[in-house]
Amino acid sequence: MNIKAEIKERMEEVDRHLDRLLPKETEYPDIIFKAMRYSVFAGGKRLRPILVLETCKMLGGDVEEAMDYACALEMIHTYSLIHDDLPALDNDNFRRGRLTNHRAFGENIAILAGDALLSHAFEVMANAAVKKNSLRGMKAMQAIAHGAGVFGMVAGQVVDVINDGKKVDEATLDFIHKKKTAAMIEGAFLAGAHLGGADEGALEILQSAAEKIGLAFQIQDDILDVTGTMEELGKPIHSDERNEKNTYVSLYGIEASEAAVQRLSDEAVALLEQFGARSAFLVALTNTLIKRRK
Amino acid sequence: MNIKAEIKERMEEVDRHLDRLLPKETEYPDIIFKAMRYSVFAGGKRLRPILVLETCKMLGGDVEEAMDYACALEMIHTYSLIHDDLPALDNDNFRRGRLTNHRAFGENIAILAGDALLSHAFEVMANAAVKKNSLRGMKAMQAIAHGAGVFGMVAGQVVDVINDGKKVDEATLDFIHKKKTAAMIEGAFLAGAHLGGADEGALEILQSAAEKIGLAFQIQDDILDVTGTMEELGKPIHSDERNEKNTYVSLYGIEASEAAVQRLSDEAVALLEQFGARSAFLVALTNTLIKRRK
Repeated sequence: MNIKAEIKERMEEVDRHLDRLLPKETEYPDIIFKAMRYSVFAGGKRLRPILVLETCKMLGGDVEEAMDYACALEMIHTYSLIHDDLPALDNDNFRRGRLTNHRAFGENIAILAGDALLSHAFEVMANAAVKKNSLRGMKAMQAIAHGAGVFGMVAGQVVDVINDGKKVDEATLDFIHKKKTAAMIEGAFLAGAHLGGADEGALEILQSAAEKIGLAFQIQDDILDVTGTMEELGKPIHSDERNEKNTYVSLYGIEASEAAVQRLSDEAVALLEQFGARSAFLVALTNTLIKRRK
Repeated sequence: MNIKAEIKERMEEVDRHLDRLLPKETEYPDIIFKAMRYSVFAGGKRLRPILVLETCKMLGGDVEEAMDYACALEMIHTYSLIHDDLPALDNDNFRRGRLTNHRAFGENIAILAGDALLSHAFEVMANAAVKKNSLRGMKAMQAIAHGAGVFGMVAGQVVDVINDGKKVDEATLDFIHKKKTAAMIEGAFLAGAHLGGADEGALEILQSAAEKIGLAFQIQDDILDVTGTMEELGKPIHSDERNEKNTYVSLYGIEASEAAVQRLSDEAVALLEQFGARSAFLVALTNTLIKRRK
């Protein structure tokens, strides 16, 4: 398997479908649709939607049905980045090599573009679930809502914000990473699992794998902020250190962080391999995440 | 029927259920749950959830099933007020006689509290729909998502924001009012209609009634900003004029605005009365909205 080429193909499929699901820039009021599209098509890796699709496919589910939920998850991910970057939160000027949404469109439109993407994601999923009268789809939506919600991503964001500039303990950093990043990765795996008709046993294995992958992904992010270049990341490096962000690297150092990424990935791969040969794509994808440079 | 007493009873039921659906203030991280509850329990009229419940009841649906959707709609309404009040948008310090969310909790937490309420609303609805494997519930969620989304409330908010301080024409003001306020009132009626098992004919009548009631409601709001007192409204009066807001009153004057409220309400009542005696509550409720002072 040429995993890079396969990932690229999936990304393009996701992009085409996102383009169909998002209102055109010519509709009224155009500025909000421009702002939504600006951030959705800013060069994201589409990791989360690909996880939805591939988990569904591994279990023998209908990948075409899964596409709407996969794209909705990417919209939710994008809304969270737009709001994260706002002056009242991280106050970031650049993301993925471009101006952040509020720097390009103004703070008022950026807040509304985030709201719009979150709302639209659920509208897309509700439309899909109604169209097929799909209990699987409803369960996927439930998993995504839970990952994005007050016991998922939002909780992680809150704990991150209230500890800004403070030194946190290991348990708090763990909470932030698990909720802020891993919860949505879990949401992606579980949504794909439900769409694939997973039984309780499969759901448990996938949830456990997802948590490990989500955590490894966030630690790798922390590492890249120190070891990456601005060209690779599309944003200023060492921004965590400058913003006195609590990261795995600041708490444990580079070496221990890299070891943690390797260990978590290996554990996740072992879990995924319980699904046999059909897990090949997800296993290969997990292994590329460790080596990513952005 | 003592409509005021009946409305009060429904409000209390909604409040009790909202209290059950929202995470406790003692959970971690408590600040977000405090912020969510601060605005949800700030003395709202609960008009939208009551419309969901009563429309469902009028059609003979399961009011108990409707309660989760009704409360979710109120959470979405509350999120929209929190984000509306932010410094980058309306920059309001008071709402319903208390400090706005960002004045009480800070701008960062207010943005996240809005995000949290919107996410939680969909989590609550997805949970409800999965639990009962309810196509009616899915359709209710779809109607609410549409009312709140990029072709509903968010679009109205965007057009309002981009025309801030500018004189708009009648068509633009109409768009703002129909989307910003009426779309969610329509969402409430349609959600209740789906939960009550409405057929196409009933849906059409209710959509038309909802649009009229939503528009009348917003015009009455514009009137009260001029004729009300700060004690009644819980916020500074004449704020629209000061903020150079485009309102029905500024465009058409008080007299024509009052006549429009009366006409729209009468038309809505005539539509509701097509459902016979069972429409008594909704008819009485519509008539009280014209006379409201806050």
